[in-house]
Amino acid sequence: MAFKHCWEDFPVGWTFSNGPRRLSSEEIVAFAREWDPQRYHTDEAAGRESPFGGLIASGWQTACIGMRLMCDGYLTDSSCVGSPGIESIEFRQPVRPGDALRFRAEVLEARPSQSRPDRGIVRWRWEVLNQRAEVVLSMLGTQMFLRRPQQES
Amino acid sequence: MAFKHCWEDFPVGWTFSNGPRRLSSEEIVAFAREWDPQRYHTDEAAGRESPFGGLIASGWQTACIGMRLMCDGYLTDSSCVGSPGIESIEFRQPVRPGDALRFRAEVLEARPSQSRPDRGIVRWRWEVLNQRAEVVLSMLGTQMFLRRPQQES
Repeated sequence: MAFKHCWEDFPVGWTFSNGPRRLSSEEIVAFAREWDPQRYHTDEAAGRESPFGGLIASGWQTACIGMRLMCDGYLTDSSCVGSPGIESIEFRQPVRPGDALRFRAEVLEARPSQSRPDRGIVRWRWEVLNQRAEVVLSMLGTQMFLRRPQQES
Repeated sequence: MAFKHCWEDFPVGWTFSNGPRRLSSEEIVAFAREWDPQRYHTDEAAGRESPFGGLIASGWQTACIGMRLMCDGYLTDSSCVGSPGIESIEFRQPVRPGDALRFRAEVLEARPSQSRPDRGIVRWRWEVLNQRAEVVLSMLGTQMFLRRPQQES
């Protein structure tokens, strides 16, 4: 299988951004009813009575939107073979109906795998920003990619 | 508003578990098409050719299932007023079609908020386990809860 992007294509300092993805109140409620049915994610009136002052998106939905933008941006056509995990997720600002979310990625570290010579590891900062350029979610995490096969000489 | 569970109900060492939630290949593919359309999450044949040897669930779906079980278990009826973030997520084992997932929570720390006397902070270990009792996802994170109003004397 030929991949558009391999480990070699993500050096330290490489950045990517895309979006926006606009989020409606219907999408916020639908996601929350399925995955995170807390009152301020599912009900506008309950949100108004909460400390958030209105309906807000589940942080997991914001993370999923970031993931989808990442996939559309650089991941789906890449040689990614998974992630051992996420180092941290900060939910910095509430996401509200009508927000238009952008995604931004930056490579913090890139190194060949010591145990698997066909793979490399990339450590990222991933951010989701709103239409006021406020970071609403910030994540650090790692992905593994296959290395580009060496050409026969 | 009266809450079933307030900060005082989650002391250090308090544990909770529930489930199982069984996951079908159709659910895995539907979630992945929306949020994480990498080939081994959306296509059984591509999964077989991948290092995972078959279709596997997006780690975000596993996290969302944990979140939903958490909501059903202790969160929805609680005084929770959000989370500043997640300290870490480890994707420890692939989740495959037919897996029956359980959720387990344990309170690691509990302290009153210093800045907001009506609130307390709880630090958790949250785990999702499969039908072989293997931890497939492990998270550390924090939630804020309103404290129970003091009775008038």
